[in-house]
Amino acid sequence: MASHFADRLCEAVKKKNTPLIVGIDPVYARLPQAIRARQKSRQKDLAVEIDALFEFSAKVVKIVAPLIPAVKINIGYFERYFWEGIETYYALISEADAMGVEIIGDVKRGDIGHTAQCYAEAHLQNPDFGGMEDIISPDAVTVNGFAGAEGIVPFADIANDQGKGIFVWVRASNPTAGVIQDFADAAGVKMYEKIAEVVGEIASQPKRLGQEGYSNVGMVVGGTTPAETSILRQRYPKCWFLVPGFGAQGATPADCLRFEDKNGRGVLVNASRSILYAYDNPKYTDQFGDNWEKCIEQAAIDAKMELAKART
Amino acid sequence: MASHFADRLCEAVKKKNTPLIVGIDPVYARLPQAIRARQKSRQKDLAVEIDALFEFSAKVVKIVAPLIPAVKINIGYFERYFWEGIETYYALISEADAMGVEIIGDVKRGDIGHTAQCYAEAHLQNPDFGGMEDIISPDAVTVNGFAGAEGIVPFADIANDQGKGIFVWVRASNPTAGVIQDFADAAGVKMYEKIAEVVGEIASQPKRLGQEGYSNVGMVVGGTTPAETSILRQRYPKCWFLVPGFGAQGATPADCLRFEDKNGRGVLVNASRSILYAYDNPKYTDQFGDNWEKCIEQAAIDAKMELAKART
Repeated sequence: MASHFADRLCEAVKKKNTPLIVGIDPVYARLPQAIRARQKSRQKDLAVEIDALFEFSAKVVKIVAPLIPAVKINIGYFERYFWEGIETYYALISEADAMGVEIIGDVKRGDIGHTAQCYAEAHLQNPDFGGMEDIISPDAVTVNGFAGAEGIVPFADIANDQGKGIFVWVRASNPTAGVIQDFADAAGVKMYEKIAEVVGEIASQPKRLGQEGYSNVGMVVGGTTPAETSILRQRYPKCWFLVPGFGAQGATPADCLRFEDKNGRGVLVNASRSILYAYDNPKYTDQFGDNWEKCIEQAAIDAKMELAKART
Repeated sequence: MASHFADRLCEAVKKKNTPLIVGIDPVYARLPQAIRARQKSRQKDLAVEIDALFEFSAKVVKIVAPLIPAVKINIGYFERYFWEGIETYYALISEADAMGVEIIGDVKRGDIGHTAQCYAEAHLQNPDFGGMEDIISPDAVTVNGFAGAEGIVPFADIANDQGKGIFVWVRASNPTAGVIQDFADAAGVKMYEKIAEVVGEIASQPKRLGQEGYSNVGMVVGGTTPAETSILRQRYPKCWFLVPGFGAQGATPADCLRFEDKNGRGVLVNASRSILYAYDNPKYTDQFGDNWEKCIEQAAIDAKMELAKART
C-alpha cells in the first residue's frame, strides 16, 4: 500500500471500483436478534451490550471489506459505553485494519491549541506507549473546524507524520444545519464556504499532497445539499470529499457523485443505516430470511450498483 | 444542594464569593517533579503517566475545591491516553464530586441527530448499567453547536432530565477563531451572534429555567474579545457565561467580569495554566519552594483576589 493517505484512497477506490463506504453506527437495540439473544437474563449489562456491538460491527466490516474502499466508524456509538466503549472502538479498528480497508474514525473532535493537539494524538497517532504496540488508530478522522486554522492544523500535521488524513466538517446533512452553515456575508459567501476556504488553504500546502495530486486534508460535505455545495469540487480539486447522506438520509446517487472527478476519484459516498440494518428491510428479509449477514452483503452490493449506474 | 444546575451555580458562586473556576488540563511533562519521579526507569508507560495525571489532578481539585464554585475538566488531556484516560477522567469526576464542587466536563462534543444523543448520554447521563453505579458524569459539559439546534437539543434535554447543564461554544479565545466566528452577514451580524441566537432560543424555553431565573443552557465566550461579545450578556440575561482566557491567555479581570450580572452571578471565569502550573512561576516558588500544592493554592487565592478587586 502507498504510504500517503490520499494515494491509498485513490488506489482503494480504483481497486474496489466504487466510491461507496459503509458507516458503522451500531445501536444495541437494533442489532440482530441472534446477537442480542446472548444477553440472557442480565439487565442492562454494559459488557453484554458492548460485546454484542463488537461482534456485530466486526462481522459487518468483514462482510463489506471485500466490496468497498473504506469504512467509517462513528465513535459516538461506542463512547456511549464510556471507556469500555472506547477500548472496543480501537479493537474494531484493529479488526478492520486486518481486513484491508481504509478506516475513517468519525470523531468530529475540535478545539483550540494544545487541546486540539491532544485530540489529534489520541485519534491519529498510533500509540507509542509500552504495552500498546498492537493498538492502531484510524487512517483518517473527521474534524470540527469551528476554531479555525489553529484547530485544524494540529490534526493535519499529525496526519502528515503518520501517513494519515483528516476530513474537516464543512457542511452537515441535517435539516437545521443551514441556520449556522448557510449563514451568508454581504457578498453571499456562506459560512461553509468560508470554512472550506480555510480547509482548502491548509489542504493545498505542498507537503500535504500525495503522488496523485490529492491532499490528505479533505472535507465532509453532506449529499443532501448538492446544488449549493458542488461548487466546492471545482474550487478545491486537491481535496477528497466525504459525503454522508446517501441512503437513509435521502441523497440520490447523482447528488453524491457530483463530487467525483473525471477519473472516478475524489469522493467517498457514505451509507450507514440503509446497509447496517438491511435485515430490517423486507426487500432483503424476503430473500434471505433471518440470515442478517446476507442481507447486509446484498444491501452493500445494491448500493454499489446503484452508484455505478449513476456514474455511467 | 438545589437540583437545578443553574440554581446550584448561583448558590455555589454566592457561597464561594467568586466567579473563578479552575481548568484541569494536565500535561504529564509539566507535572511536579515529585510526582513524575515515580516514573522510575519505565519508558513511556501509559499507566505511569495516567496515574501521575490522576494523582496531580485529584490533589489540585482538593486544594481549590474550598475556594471556588466549580472545576472544568478538559477531557482531551485524558483522552490522549485512550480508554485508560477516559476511565481516569470519570474517576476524577467522582473525586471532584466528593469534594463538593460543580464539575464541568470540557468535551466540546457536537454532531447531528442520533450521534449527538449518544454523546449526550456518554457525557451527561449517569451510567445506568449494572456494575457502574459508582460512576457519575459531570454536572455540565461544553457542546460544539456547529450542527445547529439539532446538535444542541439532545444535550439540553438530557441535561434537563439529569438536573445538569450545558455550555455551547459561541466564541473561542484563540487568535484565528475570528476567521470563522466573526464572519458577518450583510447586516453586520457575526457568526458567533447567530450561534448565540440559536443557543439563546433553546436556553429561554421555560422548562430549562431554574428558580433564580437562569437557564441550564449557557454559552462559552472567550474573555479575549470583551468589546465584541459583552453585548451577549444583555441579549441573553438567562444564560450563564463560561469565560475562558483569564490568566495565561491574557484576558483581564474586567474583560471577564463584563458578563457578570448586578448580583455577581451569571459568569464563570476560567483560569487553567496560570493556576495549574503555579509551581513553575518564580512568584510562587520564591515563597513556597518546591511545595507545589502551596503554589497552586496561593495562585488560586490570588486569582480570586484579582477578580474580587475588579468586581468592586
